[in-house]
Amino acid sequence: MNIPKSSFPRVIIIGGGFAGIALAKKLSKQEVQVVLLDKHNYHTFQPLLYQVSTGGLEPDSIAYPIRKVLQDFPNFFFRLANVSEINTDNNHVITNIGELKYDYLVVASGSKTNYFGNKSIKENSMEMKTIPQSLNLRSLILENFEEALLTSDLNERNALMNFVIVGAGPTGVELAGALAEIKKGILPKDYPDLDTRLAQINLIQSGDKILKAMSTKASKKAEDFLEDLGVHVWKNIRVTGYDGKTVTTNSDLTFDAATVVWAAGVKGAAIKGIDAEQFVTRGNRIIVNEFNQVKGLDNIFAIGDVAQMETEAVPSGHPMMAQPAIQQGKLLGENLLKLLENKPMKPFVYNDKGSMATIGRNKAVVDLPKFKFQGVFAWFVWMFVHLFFLIGFRNRMVVFINWVYNYIRFDREARLIIRPYKKELKS
Amino acid sequence: MNIPKSSFPRVIIIGGGFAGIALAKKLSKQEVQVVLLDKHNYHTFQPLLYQVSTGGLEPDSIAYPIRKVLQDFPNFFFRLANVSEINTDNNHVITNIGELKYDYLVVASGSKTNYFGNKSIKENSMEMKTIPQSLNLRSLILENFEEALLTSDLNERNALMNFVIVGAGPTGVELAGALAEIKKGILPKDYPDLDTRLAQINLIQSGDKILKAMSTKASKKAEDFLEDLGVHVWKNIRVTGYDGKTVTTNSDLTFDAATVVWAAGVKGAAIKGIDAEQFVTRGNRIIVNEFNQVKGLDNIFAIGDVAQMETEAVPSGHPMMAQPAIQQGKLLGENLLKLLENKPMKPFVYNDKGSMATIGRNKAVVDLPKFKFQGVFAWFVWMFVHLFFLIGFRNRMVVFINWVYNYIRFDREARLIIRPYKKELKS
Repeated sequence: MNIPKSSFPRVIIIGGGFAGIALAKKLSKQEVQVVLLDKHNYHTFQPLLYQVSTGGLEPDSIAYPIRKVLQDFPNFFFRLANVSEINTDNNHVITNIGELKYDYLVVASGSKTNYFGNKSIKENSMEMKTIPQSLNLRSLILENFEEALLTSDLNERNALMNFVIVGAGPTGVELAGALAEIKKGILPKDYPDLDTRLAQINLIQSGDKILKAMSTKASKKAEDFLEDLGVHVWKNIRVTGYDGKTVTTNSDLTFDAATVVWAAGVKGAAIKGIDAEQFVTRGNRIIVNEFNQVKGLDNIFAIGDVAQMETEAVPSGHPMMAQPAIQQGKLLGENLLKLLENKPMKPFVYNDKGSMATIGRNKAVVDLPKFKFQGVFAWFVWMFVHLFFLIGFRNRMVVFINWVYNYIRFDREARLIIRPYKKELKS
Repeated sequence: MNIPKSSFPRVIIIGGGFAGIALAKKLSKQEVQVVLLDKHNYHTFQPLLYQVSTGGLEPDSIAYPIRKVLQDFPNFFFRLANVSEINTDNNHVITNIGELKYDYLVVASGSKTNYFGNKSIKENSMEMKTIPQSLNLRSLILENFEEALLTSDLNERNALMNFVIVGAGPTGVELAGALAEIKKGILPKDYPDLDTRLAQINLIQSGDKILKAMSTKASKKAEDFLEDLGVHVWKNIRVTGYDGKTVTTNSDLTFDAATVVWAAGVKGAAIKGIDAEQFVTRGNRIIVNEFNQVKGLDNIFAIGDVAQMETEAVPSGHPMMAQPAIQQGKLLGENLLKLLENKPMKPFVYNDKGSMATIGRNKAVVDLPKFKFQGVFAWFVWMFVHLFFLIGFRNRMVVFINWVYNYIRFDREARLIIRPYKKELKS
């Protein structure tokens, strides 16, 4: 890879998510050469992917060109690359566009869907971790409605209008709520010739609580909101398989459904070279110390979802969310500069700002460290916070306009099958 | 295809472009059953596709769900279908989702790219008639810049940054202008490590005039604008082939280029069953009388780009543009109702409202029937007219905001490779 030589030490960052971008910004005007590698040329605002899948937002408004984030910074290089391996002996990374030496390496490669080894689910269900995946889901949902019109077999039509979402974390809950709103507000108008009562939204949770990372109050209220919207919430049910037609569970319960979204597990996206047992947890997250330093590798760090910091305060690591990622990225930026000046690094302390989820219009739950609230005000807080963290003025404007429009008109206009997901509509 | 039986006569419309939508709206509240078939579930505002290809607009803001256009109308049915054949003997259409009988059939299938039989160009060049095609071009342009960074072979880098646009109609001119603005405003900031002077934009026209359908004044001024922007305009040069590496012409001139856009020809998208010699012109447009009725087939009509009305006033048919399509769609709506009431139909008279093209910021040319003007005011007129004809309030708002943002910031933020066009970046 032809990156110009520099007299400054080279920091390679793998991944332009929340953690990688926060770190790169901190390092941007310092005496280091920064090389950021990502397989996409854009940063994805993952918390709003479910709105892309459900036609509420265009994909381009929650993506932001990585080159633009760091446009004005000297000593900064971006390369569109897929890192396949890290050679820790020779300090270089191996990618599809060649190899590159590092002085310091920061793994910020995020997380990926965890199917816990279940092949049938992996092959037949949809995931929603990237923009292309979210667009695939958007296409599939719309294609299934179109196909439901074509069949006179009631079982088939039922299955085409049956949605199963596995996992009731924020992603599952928000997606279920959005689908319920589509069922209520859009289906009857768009498909007057379909009995839209057939559309079922099933949210399945293996434990006895939805939004399990949140307070009991938030969890209960979210469940009430979902039930108000007509979502079937199934708790204490574990999905065991999906052959493309039928979802099986650990009980007698089965679901014939054409759309199954797997939101029940994530794992760290550790990279070959530091993915051996000594480096990673069972969830494939890289074990780091309180400076985000990888165990036994002084010049390699991991931040964000892929990192698991096992300290007394958080024996099982921080939650895989934007906030720890941003905070770790920022602190590591400061710490790398300290390291270069031979000053002692500062240990990471997570500042938990709380968590939130939205279920539908005027329906959200917010847990702040000191206050917990639900309903209309929570919903406005949720929107404000998401707009605030979105990167780019244009993105904020476009998202804001879409939200105002969707709110006033009970609508979601990006219901477009731009790239069909199924190869061809069956006759 | 299971469309409910109706006591009203059934009108099948093939295609949800400008013509088909205008017709469907006219028929919406009348005593006819309307079935609209399209292979996309959205209407595409084709005049702005070049802005999608160049990252100025998100695709979702120039697309509009067809179901939504006609949401409130009874007796209206939409089906996502690809029509493969028309059986004129039995009055039915054959599609990938089954067959359907019609009482009246309206072919509004538009146009497609005409390669004039040149296979090498067809296989290796890009076209820009649909949203997926425009997104492919957007990806390819960005992928080529990324790849240009990777090579140390100067010839290869030149080719990756060399753009050849064949055909200097509005599409070619507008695309060339937009690329020139990217070269000037975005490349130097995004790719500080690339010598962006290497980026060349070549616009090739077989005749001696660009924008040949417009006035000489508009054509000349457009050429001046393009040259100001650094576009190389080649006239009286005919492109003869493109093997994926080198564009050959009928002169000694050749171009080594990785991005070639073919905007030099369109043909009617006539459908099997009425595509025999007796029905179509050499350009594959269906020959119709002044009522848009297909020759010899009383209950079949063609409107828009696919129709060629050969009257004394326009011996070679109307231009393949939005205006004739919209006007024909509207009039046919009225005429079909007249036909049902056994009243005489009204012949079509094209009301030429003029034509326009934009080259870049503050640079456009407008030919109205009574005035011709160029420059800043023309540019504002161009924007206003395009916003006006765009379907949907939300689309207008989002496009407007993007334009204001792009104007103030000299920017185009949708430079995202969401679906890579090349299979994989070469190492």
